[in-house]
Amino acid sequence: MDTPLDTLTEQFRRLPGIGVKTARKLAYYIVQQSPDRVDEFIAAIRNAKENMHFCSICFNLSSKDPCPICSDDGRDHSIICVVETPQDVQAIERSGDYHGLYHVLHGALSPLDGIGVDDLRIKELLQRLGNTDVKEVIIATDPDVEGEATALYLARLLKTAGIRVTRIARGLPMGGDIEYADEATLAGAVANRQEM
Amino acid sequence: MDTPLDTLTEQFRRLPGIGVKTARKLAYYIVQQSPDRVDEFIAAIRNAKENMHFCSICFNLSSKDPCPICSDDGRDHSIICVVETPQDVQAIERSGDYHGLYHVLHGALSPLDGIGVDDLRIKELLQRLGNTDVKEVIIATDPDVEGEATALYLARLLKTAGIRVTRIARGLPMGGDIEYADEATLAGAVANRQEM
Repeated sequence: MDTPLDTLTEQFRRLPGIGVKTARKLAYYIVQQSPDRVDEFIAAIRNAKENMHFCSICFNLSSKDPCPICSDDGRDHSIICVVETPQDVQAIERSGDYHGLYHVLHGALSPLDGIGVDDLRIKELLQRLGNTDVKEVIIATDPDVEGEATALYLARLLKTAGIRVTRIARGLPMGGDIEYADEATLAGAVANRQEM
Repeated sequence: MDTPLDTLTEQFRRLPGIGVKTARKLAYYIVQQSPDRVDEFIAAIRNAKENMHFCSICFNLSSKDPCPICSDDGRDHSIICVVETPQDVQAIERSGDYHGLYHVLHGALSPLDGIGVDDLRIKELLQRLGNTDVKEVIIATDPDVEGEATALYLARLLKTAGIRVTRIARGLPMGGDIEYADEATLAGAVANRQEM
């Protein structure tokens, strides 16, 4: 018979990257916290779920609509960086060098998983490009099979519409090791070599 | 300014073993789940927190009082295994070879952390031993500095009271953690317990 603790363990186990041992540890931790502490945790979950929504322009997660990035006049509104997830936006923002806008597809093309063009925010991207004066679209989907397929599809689609389309560079990561780099990464790094 | 998502990330980061990247991933995951799924998660937390209590006999976590182990007549009530945490009870139960009772201290002696004799359920253990006919106490505190100190303290205390005291065998590596030991090691450690 499952106890409430087992149920909570199972709920934690369903979170991404949480195995059964971590789930158990978290469940035990939670039930041994003070009621105030648990209420605070629950309030944070509820508050995040109720107040974070998708920006109606770029589909990033935000507590405001439009999101702070889309409504920032100090940013370059002529460049849109297309990414798969809101986490990718956050990662590029942390890198600190990009000052254009974003467009979150919410996934990548993956026929095997039944994810097609209509499941991504591609129609909304085209609409957006039709309404505004965008000079360049940077495609920053993941450099894996699905991300590359999505990048190729978007590149063809947007170039026929006469928009400059670029792809983030494939190369070795900082602190990487040539000896241990995989073939595709190395081939890409050599092909994309730059003048010094 | 912190968004509700940042607040939730911070809440996740405060859980044991959750770093900032995992916390961020979990927060993004939660806000992108269906409202029903999030409600289910919150209900599991609330239900576990409200319904799991300490057994008034052994101080293990249980939704019943006395807990199913203390109230099981099929178990050997003449042996008590003393552990640091409820997770340790669960780990030994999973090893499947032990059929006595437990006593959860809720910690180990650690002067540096300000945890002394009165912060553990030692008084309750003595009371319990006074009231019932216990033949043996197995001390299954962690084989680290605090666990060993606790074991030595208890051994002296209980032997002066004329009770047989054993320590689980050093089959566990020093500095290890009972909660994460594999079943065979734990079962062997219980079977090879030695006189103190």
